[in-house]
This record gives sequence, structure tokens and C-alpha cells, in this order.
Amino acid sequence: MSKKVAVVMGSDSDLDTMRACMKRLKAFGVPFEVHVISAHRTPAAAEQFASSAREKGFGVIIAAAGKAAHLAGVLAAYTTLPVIGVPIKTSMMGGLDSLLSMVQMPKGIPVACVAVDGADNAAILAAQMLALSDDGLSGTLSQFKTDMALEVMDKDQKIQMEEF
Amino acid sequence: MSKKVAVVMGSDSDLDTMRACMKRLKAFGVPFEVHVISAHRTPAAAEQFASSAREKGFGVIIAAAGKAAHLAGVLAAYTTLPVIGVPIKTSMMGGLDSLLSMVQMPKGIPVACVAVDGADNAAILAAQMLALSDDGLSGTLSQFKTDMALEVMDKDQKIQMEEF
Amino acid sequence: MSKKVAVVMGSDSDLDTMRACMKRLKAFGVPFEVHVISAHRTPAAAEQFASSAREKGFGVIIAAAGKAAHLAGVLAAYTTLPVIGVPIKTSMMGGLDSLLSMVQMPKGIPVACVAVDGADNAAILAAQMLALSDDGLSGTLSQFKTDMALEVMDKDQKIQMEEF
Amino acid sequence: MSKKVAVVMGSDSDLDTMRACMKRLKAFGVPFEVHVISAHRTPAAAEQFASSAREKGFGVIIAAAGKAAHLAGVLAAYTTLPVIGVPIKTSMMGGLDSLLSMVQMPKGIPVACVAVDGADNAAILAAQMLALSDDGLSGTLSQFKTDMALEVMDKDQKIQMEEF
Amino acid sequence: MSKKVAVVMGSDSDLDTMRACMKRLKAFGVPFEVHVISAHRTPAAAEQFASSAREKGFGVIIAAAGKAAHLAGVLAAYTTLPVIGVPIKTSMMGGLDSLLSMVQMPKGIPVACVAVDGADNAAILAAQMLALSDDGLSGTLSQFKTDMALEVMDKDQKIQMEEF
Amino acid sequence: MSKKVAVVMGSDSDLDTMRACMKRLKAFGVPFEVHVISAHRTPAAAEQFASSAREKGFGVIIAAAGKAAHLAGVLAAYTTLPVIGVPIKTSMMGGLDSLLSMVQMPKGIPVACVAVDGADNAAILAAQMLALSDDGLSGTLSQFKTDMALEVMDKDQKIQMEEF
Amino acid sequence: MSKKVAVVMGSDSDLDTMRACMKRLKAFGVPFEVHVISAHRTPAAAEQFASSAREKGFGVIIAAAGKAAHLAGVLAAYTTLPVIGVPIKTSMMGGLDSLLSMVQMPKGIPVACVAVDGADNAAILAAQMLALSDDGLSGTLSQFKTDMALEVMDKDQKIQMEEF
Amino acid sequence: MSKKVAVVMGSDSDLDTMRACMKRLKAFGVPFEVHVISAHRTPAAAEQFASSAREKGFGVIIAAAGKAAHLAGVLAAYTTLPVIGVPIKTSMMGGLDSLLSMVQMPKGIPVACVAVDGADNAAILAAQMLALSDDGLSGTLSQFKTDMALEVMDKDQKIQMEEF
Repeated sequence: MSKKVAVVMGSDSDLDTMRACMKRLKAFGVPFEVHVISAHRTPAAAEQFASSAREKGFGVIIAAAGKAAHLAGVLAAYTTLPVIGVPIKTSMMGGLDSLLSMVQMPKGIPVACVAVDGADNAAILAAQMLALSDDGLSGTLSQFKTDMALEVMDKDQKIQMEEF
Repeated sequence: MSKKVAVVMGSDSDLDTMRACMKRLKAFGVPFEVHVISAHRTPAAAEQFASSAREKGFGVIIAAAGKAAHLAGVLAAYTTLPVIGVPIKTSMMGGLDSLLSMVQMPKGIPVACVAVDGADNAAILAAQMLALSDDGLSGTLSQFKTDMALEVMDKDQKIQMEEF
Repeated sequence: MSKKVAVVMGSDSDLDTMRACMKRLKAFGVPFEVHVISAHRTPAAAEQFASSAREKGFGVIIAAAGKAAHLAGVLAAYTTLPVIGVPIKTSMMGGLDSLLSMVQMPKGIPVACVAVDGADNAAILAAQMLALSDDGLSGTLSQFKTDMALEVMDKDQKIQMEEF
Repeated sequence: MSKKVAVVMGSDSDLDTMRACMKRLKAFGVPFEVHVISAHRTPAAAEQFASSAREKGFGVIIAAAGKAAHLAGVLAAYTTLPVIGVPIKTSMMGGLDSLLSMVQMPKGIPVACVAVDGADNAAILAAQMLALSDDGLSGTLSQFKTDMALEVMDKDQKIQMEEF
Repeated sequence: MSKKVAVVMGSDSDLDTMRACMKRLKAFGVPFEVHVISAHRTPAAAEQFASSAREKGFGVIIAAAGKAAHLAGVLAAYTTLPVIGVPIKTSMMGGLDSLLSMVQMPKGIPVACVAVDGADNAAILAAQMLALSDDGLSGTLSQFKTDMALEVMDKDQKIQMEEF
Repeated sequence: MSKKVAVVMGSDSDLDTMRACMKRLKAFGVPFEVHVISAHRTPAAAEQFASSAREKGFGVIIAAAGKAAHLAGVLAAYTTLPVIGVPIKTSMMGGLDSLLSMVQMPKGIPVACVAVDGADNAAILAAQMLALSDDGLSGTLSQFKTDMALEVMDKDQKIQMEEF
Repeated sequence: MSKKVAVVMGSDSDLDTMRACMKRLKAFGVPFEVHVISAHRTPAAAEQFASSAREKGFGVIIAAAGKAAHLAGVLAAYTTLPVIGVPIKTSMMGGLDSLLSMVQMPKGIPVACVAVDGADNAAILAAQMLALSDDGLSGTLSQFKTDMALEVMDKDQKIQMEEF
Repeated sequence: MSKKVAVVMGSDSDLDTMRACMKRLKAFGVPFEVHVISAHRTPAAAEQFASSAREKGFGVIIAAAGKAAHLAGVLAAYTTLPVIGVPIKTSMMGGLDSLLSMVQMPKGIPVACVAVDGADNAAILAAQMLALSDDGLSGTLSQFKTDMALEVMDKDQKIQMEEF
């Protein structure tokens, strides 16, 4: 059976942005758990969670956080599982602070960063990683790609018929 | 046997930065191939490479590019393999242009972005993905993490003995 | 007869911003077609469109996209027609991500970038290019410039009469 | 015969960056003239040059300037010829000041902006515009594109043989 | 009698922001004229206005413009009167484009730049310049400074009595 | 008895943001005074306040200001008490102007800068400083940290029960 | 006799950049004094200097400072003379910190900001202000403008003869 | 006896920048310890150090780190001692990434951030905190402030005698 994905948020205020992530994982049939763990307010919980994530059956960790967004890096410090970071948009420069805090990791401890508020893509990326050893999921991803293309081609057809 | 990693550069001027990536993959015993493919100058080669990467035994693609760094996104458009982006530092804002061009991918086509010039971390991240179904590699990564910690602790010991 | 302009959007969410482009082309009597083609979701369509654009009678391609805005560059990779890029404003740094992704093209494959959300100017620029071999259109552009000046001068007259 | 390209620099300190532009135009067989005209120090010369550019046989104007880079916009104000802007790199944020000063033109007066220090691409873009009514030049551009691709493919071959 | 101040806007859309400027000049008793002149749409009017500003009795020119805000620089190119620039806030990075386009003037042609949307301060600065040879105005400015201080001290008194 | 904290705002428009600061100090039982003092409009008051702050029983000064936010630096110039700066968010780049104006202090005169609009954290930081010689306050801070962790852990429990 | 200009530097490390200012003032025959006064290290000296500047015969103050560049604002707080700010380039974002700290002044206390490292232009701007009541200086400025134009035109002549 | 200051670096490559900090603490007679602890490579050491810092006699922690600079925040998560952050300059935007990663801390866990590479000021700030309950140190700081002022006044004297 496929490994689980952990979706960890630094604050429950990130939940609305992250729903797209859970929705996509569900649509792909990827099992997942959702957590609120703060790198700064519950550092011990962060340590505990990341240290035991592999043995608990997780394959990938998705970490969403904003501002001085340390969550992804802190989790990555305690595990060798791939950690995907979702920088949450802030009112300070549109999330550039979150992005730089997540992506500019030092040598040795990578975080796989997606776009600001890129909750959906984080789920797809997690699925791509799990699909490396899951042919069913791999097929699901191919189908998803095809559907996406068809949807855009459909819009292309429609817009050509519009009057400007 | 473990899947291969593709290290693709948009220009051979990125080679010096990317050597750390090849060195790390080699040290981890991860098989890899190195390519120079330009999203803009050889778009057909990019398409061909990405479309057939999975069947050729690749598990992860690492794409390094600078400025309007489209390479990772273009490869991701043609495959469902995870694509890791390495934004190459430029003289324009220290690589912020490369970073934003890589990380801000639209919904549906994720790129796993690491730090500007993060060649080493790209290799580690690729290994983390492959290790999801390779216990030997997983052990290698744990060992690497332990060694890294010991090295820092050693430096901590030394600096405490220094006279300021 | 004048060559056609292709107005290509990366997503139909760009349509509202781009209407000003179609409106201007229509006012100038420049024939045009509108398409939705995604560099990432329908890369094959992008290739096909750009590769055959010249023989289909297009003279200029206008490409509008946001975030990691690769569309203009991807189209430019497959044609030698001039490609005008319109970076679409995003909530991340007001479109700076779109702008840098579009304008910072590598040597060999230029994109003619206009301002963030510069849909109207993209149309005028396209007309300027086509007017190089179309004296009627050239006259239309001169008249447009004169009208624009008169409009501003009129506002100058009015504001001088205002009481502050 | 093909129309001429005007290469206008705001300062002779931009010459070293712009040589790549003249070299490319020459290689393409596109006739050109080089000028030093300052939007701020010789505004009358700027007006005079731009106003009469069309009748003097120019088809495209390339304007290079740095910092508060107004040259391209000032020339565009006096002509309906397409004006290509080359933002020159500065020590202030790597040319971001030049870029924003050039690309963010108001409605009605477009400038076709290329990358910071994008002298070579400005020449290619100018040639693309002139090639709309010059089949010979169009062929030259196709050949250039093919050569560029071959060069990259050659590098790809070589790097695959390298030992890492 | 005191010299006049010219308040020039690049577009009548800047009027709402600039009303604070006219209001302040009026309160100080400084005579002024208001104009809408576009550096790009009515360049001839800009030239004409700036060239003759001194002989028409103007002492200072205040120029407000947004985006690629060339107006102040273009006026400064045609006069030796001090030109004050007011960068108008835009949706692209909060006016950073306007600010850099105005303040980063090349050697020889200064613009005295105030804060983004700094209409009020532009008026005060203009008054400070005119007050160099107008003792009455100088006294008005001193009184204004004193009043401003009293107003703040009054707020300080009030806030100390507030219950938190 | 514990030393007092001074909460100084550059403008009463900063009050809404700063209420969180006063609320936290009150909850911690830290005595405080609130002032409106402008570095630019009432520089003499700033000097007077900072110069005499220590002898009036203040232990820490919290200074909140926006834009060219000099208040914290100006107060720090006149005292050796620790000065905490709260950069107030502005519409220009989300407060980056305030942040850089506050944090980039020259050698010799430090300001302890917290996040943009970080009113609450400024209070906690002030309490941490005072707690160095106040065991009661130190205990309050420990309890606060524990409560904060419990609150997050509670949210973690709840979210795990949610259906996605 | 013409009023004096005060050139005030926040640190003697700014001297090399500011020499161009003194050189230009000397060439224009404008009397000036040079000072090192730190807004943060010698705030009392700053207050004293600015408060008495008018009565000591100064007409304009030029203030150069880097990083959290408060000097111009602090001087402006104590005088109604026009204060010109020269933001000194730093290694942090090329002087953007200095620029924003100087130009974003609050309502009521303007600073006339020139470009990063714009020492020469600060002198010219000061001369333009003094020339409002000094016809000789006004003539000098006109001559300077003419000479500058001739110099550029000369360069234009030369570059047209160059072989590319 | 005064409490100790801990100077913690994320990497020994930060040592050169931080020497100014140790030098200043020594000059002030403040006892200190120096450590190399990585938030990401030795997270357990970070936890251990911060958790026990208070009982080991530390009063203030200074944490220096670059890029995704989490060190200060991670230490602050495990202690209620004041934590001073020194963002280390990087080649990516001059340290803006380090600065934002440090200063933008979430509610509840403050970090007292100083300027990029502000090693010296971090020491002074730490001393200011300790001086709240150490009159001797408070006197040292006053003397330091006086000396600094005298040094600047001396430079002011010298520069007035210079010939320009």
C-alpha cells in the first residue's frame, strides 16, 4: 500500500489555503494526515513528529508556513524523508518573506519549495514522489495530465469562437 | 536497481555550479546522466528528453537554469516524474529572477525548487525521493545526516577552545 | 493584406486584462486570432502553434501569462516571428515574478516585453511592427498619436480652469 | 532594400555592453547607425532624431540606457516606429531600476523591452521585425536558430562523455 | 512678489493624490498653476512648458507621475529650475517603479524626489526653496513647523490619558 | 519593582497596530506608558524623552514608526537603554521601507527590530529583557510559552478529527 | 553674496563618494562648508547645526548617509531650509535601504532625495535652488547645461565614425 | 556577577563577521561563550543548548545565520531568554533573505534583529539588556557613547580643515 503524506501547517490560519492540497491528495487516492505543528510554539512536537514520521508510514511531508517560515526546514532537520514547503502568502511583499525563508536552505538539508500558496502543486509533487514506486498512482498522474490538457484545449476552442 | 537521476543544464556555463550535484550523487551511489538542453534553443530536445525519461529508467530530473529559467517548467510539462529546479545565480538581483521563474509554477505542473545555486541539495533531495523505495539509499542518507551533525559538533568543540 | 496577430493567453483568467489588446487591434483594423494555450499544460499545442504560425499568416505573436510566465519564451523558442510578452499582474509582488520570468530571456531567443498588464501597448507595438510594411497602418498609428496628444492637451486646458 | 536599425545609447559608457548588438546586426547583414543621444542632456537631439527617423529610412530604433532609463520612452514619444529598450545593468539592484524605468511605459506609448544588458537579443528582435517584409532576412533568422540548436546539441554530446 | 510654482501631472488620474499639494501651496500663499502634460503623449508640450517656465515667472516645478515616471526628468532636461518629483503609487510594487524611474537620474540633470504619493511634502519643499529669498514665506514655514509640533504634543497628552 | 516600558509611536495612526503591545504588557503585569512622539515633527520631545528615560524608571523603549521610520534610531541615539523597533506596515512594499529604515542601524547604535507590525512580539521581547532581573516575570513568560504550546497542540488534535 | 551650502556626511567613509559634490560646488563658485555629523552618534551636534544653519548663512543643506540613513531627516526636523539627501550605496541591496530611509519621509518634513551616490547632482540641485535669487549662478547653470549637451553631441559625432 | 552572553553561529563560515561581536563583548567586560550550532544540521544540539541556557547562567543569546536563517528562531523556541539575531550577508540580494528569515517571526516568539552583518551592534544590544541590572555595565555603555561622539566630532574638526 502507498505510503502516507503528512500535511503539516504552522498555524490553523493556513487551513483555507491548504484545503486544495488535501482535496487533490484525496482525488488521487493518496492517504494523508493533517497536523498543526508550530516550529516556534511547539518545537518539541515538530521534532517528535519528524523524527518518527518514516516509521509511522509517512513517505512525504508537506509543510506550509508564512513569514519567517521555518517549519519545513525544522522538520527536514529531523528526517531524511523529502519535505515539500508551501510558502504562505503574507501582507509583507506578497509572501516573498515566506518564500525566501523556505527555499534558501543551507547545504545538507534540502526543502522542495513550490510557489507561494502552491497547495495544489504540493499535493501533485508529493504524488509524483510516491508514484516512483506505485504504478497505479503513476497512471493516475498521467491521466490527470491528459485531462488538464483537454480542459485547456477546450477553452482554446471556446475563445476562438468569441466575438471581440 | 535504483532509478537514474537526470541532471539537465540550460547552458554549459552552469556546469561549475552543478559539479557539486554530480559529486553528491556519485558519493551516494545514485546513477545519473548529465545533459545540456536549452528550453529555448533546443525545445525539441527538451520535449523528447522529458517525454521519454520515465521509460529510459529515470526517476528524478534535476534542472538547472538562470535568468528567465524555464527549463525545469518545460521539462515538467512533458513528464510526471518529479522535477527539481536549481535556480542559477545571476548578476541581476542575485538570482531572484531565476528563483521566481522557477518556483512560481502554475497549478497542475509543480517544480520542486531548491535554493539559488543549491546544486548539492538538489542531489540530496533527489536521493530522498529515490530512497522512498530503496532501503539501502535510505540508510546512506541517515548516515550522511549523522556525519554532517558530527562535523558541526566538532567545529563547536574547536571554536569553544579559541581565544577571542 | 496585413499579416495577422495572434493573441495567446496562458489561461482564460487572463482574458479580462487582455480585452484591451483585442479592442485596440480591432480599432486599428489589424486582423487577429485569440487562443488559450498553456506552456505547461498544453506544451504540444504551444509547439504546434508557434511552429506553424508564420505559414498560417501570422506576423506577430502576443503572449500573456502570469507568475512563472514561460508562455512567451516557449512560443519564441519555436518561431522566428517577433513575440511580444505581456506579464500579467499577480498577488506575488505585483507581477514582478511575471515580469522577470518574461523579460530576462537568454541570448538568442528574445521576447519583446511590455509593462505588467500592458495589454493595450502590446497591441500598439504589434501594429508598429506590422506598419513597417503597411503604409495604411502607419498612417493609422500617426493619427492615433495625434489624437492621444489632443486628448491630453484638452485635459490640460480643463485643469487650468479648475479652482483649487 | 532593408530598412536601417538605429542603435542609440544614452551614454558612451554603454558602448561595451552594446557592441554585441552591432556585431549581431552586422552578422545578419542588417544596415545600422550608432548614436549617443541623451534623453536628459541632449533632449533636443533626441526629439530631432526620433521625429525624423522614419523618413531617414530607419525601421527600428534600439535604445540602451541605465538608471532612470528614459531614453527609449523619450524616443518612442516622437515616433511610431517600434522602439526596443535595453536596460543597462547598474550597481543599484543589478539593473532593476533601469528595467522598471523602461518597461513600465504608460498606455499609448509602448517600448519593447529585452533583458538587462540584452544587447544581442535587441539586435535579433530588430531583425525579426524587419524580416516581416524581408524574406532573405527571415531565412537568415531560421538558419541562425538552427545553428544555435546544433551548438547546444553538440555541447550535450560532449558533456555526456565527461567523467564526474 | 514670490515666484510661481508649476504643478504638472502626467495624467489627470494623478489629480486626487496631488490635491494635497495644491491645498498646501494655497495655505502657504504661494501662487501656482496646475497642468496636465504627458512626457510621452505630449512631449512637445513638455518641452515648450519647461523651456519657457523661468521666463513665465515660475521658480519651481513639481512633477507627478507613475510607473515609468519620466515626466520630472523630461522637464528637468529643458530647464535649470529645480524640479521636484512626486512618484505616484502604482499597483506594481507599491510605486517602487515610479520611485526608481524618478530618483535615479543621471549625472547633470537632478530631480528632487520626495516620497511615493508625497504631494504635501512636494509643496512644502517648493515653499522652502522659494523662501530662500522670501522672508515672509520663511516665517510661514517656521509657524507651520511649530503648529505641527504642537499638534503632535497635543496627541501625546491625549494618549497618555487613555486606558489600555 | 519592575522597570517601566515606554511605548512610543511616531503617529497616532499607529495606535491600532500597537494596541496588541499594550494588551500584552498589561497581561504580563509590566508597567508601561504610551506616548506619541515624532522623530521629525517633535525632535526636541524625542531628545528629551530618550535622554531622561532611564532616570524616569524606564527599562526598555518600544518605538513604532512607518515609512522612513527614524523614531527608534533617534531615541536610541539619546539613551543606552535597549530600544525595540516595530516597523509599521505601509502601502509602499508592505513595510519593507519601514523595516530597512529601522533595522539597518550603523555601528554603535543598535535597534532591536521585530517583524513588520510585530506589536505583540515587541511586548514579549521587552518582558524578556526585564525578566533578566525579575524572577516573577520570568515565570510568567515560561507559563505563557507553555500555554501557547498547549493551544497549538489543541488545534492539532482538532484538525486531525476534521474530514477533508 | 550667495548663501552657503552645507555638505554634511554621516560618516567620513562617505567622503570619497561626496568629493564630486564639493568639486561641482567649487566649479560653480558656490561657497560651502563640509561637516561630519552623525544622526545617531552625535545627535546633539546634528540638532545644533541644523537649528542654527539659517542664521549662519546657509541656504541649503546636503546630507549624505547610508543604510538606515536618518541624517537628512534629522537635519530637516530642525530647520526649514531645504535639505537634499544623498543615499550612499551599501552592500545591502545596492543602496535601496539608504534610498528608502531617506526618501519616504512623513508628511510635513520633506527631504529632496537624489539618486544613490548622486553627489554631483546634489550640488547641481543646490545651485538650482540658490540660483532662484542669484542671476549670476543662474547663468552659470545655463552654461553648464549647454556645455553638457555639446559634450554629448561630440561623442555622438565620434561614435558615428567608428567601425563596428 | 553579570550573566553570560552566548554567541551562537550557524556555521563557522560566519566567524569572520562575528569577531567584531566577541571583540566588543570583551571590551565591555561581558563574559561570553562562542558556539557553532546549526538549526538544521544539529537540531538536537540547538534544542539542548537553548533549553538549558538560562540555568547555565546565560542572560542573552546572540544567533548569527545566513540564507534561510532559522537559528535565532529555533533557539528562541526553546527559551524565554532574549535572542538577538544577526542576519549574515549572502550573495542572494545582499542578505535580504537572511534578514526576512530572521525578523519576520510569528506572534509569541520574538527575535531582536539587528542589521545585516551587525555583529558589533548585537554585542552592544546584549550589553544594554544586561546593563538593566548591572550599573557598572551601564556606566561602561554611557562612556562608550561619549567616546563615540567625541570620535565623530574629531572627524568633523578635521574635515573642516581639508581643502576641496
